[in-house]
Amino acid sequence: MSDTPFLGVLGGMGPLASAQFMLRLTLLTPAARDQDHLPALLWSDPRVPDRTAARLGGGEDPLPWLVRGIRGLEAAGCGAIAIPCNTAHGWFDGMAAATSLPILHIVDAAAEDLLRQGIAGGRIGVMGTAGTLAMRLYQERLDQRGYECIVPDPAEMEALVSPGIALVKANRVAEAYAPLAEAARNLRNRGAAAVVLGCTEIPLGIQAGPQAEIGLPLVDTIDALALAALRWAGR
Amino acid sequence: MSDTPFLGVLGGMGPLASAQFMLRLTLLTPAARDQDHLPALLWSDPRVPDRTAARLGGGEDPLPWLVRGIRGLEAAGCGAIAIPCNTAHGWFDGMAAATSLPILHIVDAAAEDLLRQGIAGGRIGVMGTAGTLAMRLYQERLDQRGYECIVPDPAEMEALVSPGIALVKANRVAEAYAPLAEAARNLRNRGAAAVVLGCTEIPLGIQAGPQAEIGLPLVDTIDALALAALRWAGR
Repeated sequence: MSDTPFLGVLGGMGPLASAQFMLRLTLLTPAARDQDHLPALLWSDPRVPDRTAARLGGGEDPLPWLVRGIRGLEAAGCGAIAIPCNTAHGWFDGMAAATSLPILHIVDAAAEDLLRQGIAGGRIGVMGTAGTLAMRLYQERLDQRGYECIVPDPAEMEALVSPGIALVKANRVAEAYAPLAEAARNLRNRGAAAVVLGCTEIPLGIQAGPQAEIGLPLVDTIDALALAALRWAGR
Repeated sequence: MSDTPFLGVLGGMGPLASAQFMLRLTLLTPAARDQDHLPALLWSDPRVPDRTAARLGGGEDPLPWLVRGIRGLEAAGCGAIAIPCNTAHGWFDGMAAATSLPILHIVDAAAEDLLRQGIAGGRIGVMGTAGTLAMRLYQERLDQRGYECIVPDPAEMEALVSPGIALVKANRVAEAYAPLAEAARNLRNRGAAAVVLGCTEIPLGIQAGPQAEIGLPLVDTIDALALAALRWAGR
């Protein structure tokens, strides 16, 4: 029995996004039969306390829940961890300190996807949870790579982005399209050359409607992370 | 930190079907936010030896791989096991003997779905792998419940069903529609009142085309198993 390490996926944040991650990981793998695909373990624990509430509103600390999942994946024989939740990366250092496994960083994966799409600099729109934007997870890492980040303003966050994300978490993906697409178009109108969908719920909402009408390149952070995982696995 | 048991999902057979199971489990859950969803662990090991080849052609025995996954899920704290692969249920007794956890049987889940769709008896078409049909996994359990099962003939298996399943496992879902839909229509023409898609690759192929044109009720064994899992969890 082969001892190839599994890819560990710390998910459930939200559960639809991590299921979609598994689907896209599979579809993006060059494979002719089951046995060509990557072994992977998905730890889907949707009970992890809300990351944005913890950062902005003094809600329960998610770190013990995140570490519990990482240790579970480590104990089961995983060789690396992917976390299809952007906001959870605000606790990246705490998670990395709790394991000897490499954790693939979703912002680095998104940056690689910008390059893959031929966008090496300039103004980039970033959509994400209020927690992700307040923690400046994208702004700092993309600025270092020579991009200029712009984000929705507080009124757009309240009226469009945060409700769109909440609709996906409540399984109402079709209704999430209109507010999320409007926020993306607003970033385009402010001069963005591309928009990073920096919350894994956002691509699910955007794909539920006419994605092409947004009219500029989009970085799907679910796909970007799946491609980074395939690179880790040498595929 | 809550000790609610996780649903254990023994998957990877194929990996697209088990990812779709996680997606449908999420979408079928009444939930308004992440924390309302079910905690679940997916053990996706696509390296499990081919089940049909093992049963029909003397290929490597998959049971040690299946038991390894079940023990991994048990060790991680799962409270029940769902296996979104019909053919793997040919090793049900061996798996059940290796764990004290309940294993939800996919054929029972499909039978419950027939009743849910108002079909309490009569002629039922069953599509599945050559292994599933040869092991009579559906025929015996559905006959006991008062149904009469009909299955594709050997020429249809060779020309339509087996190639359709293989196309899904190779990520070629769109091409899988035509042969799988033709096999389903042939069962309808032989008098089936409904067709059980008794291989978890088949609904993926059927959904990649105009499913409604098949013209009779279908039992999606991915959805049926997800609904059985939600019932186990009291949702």
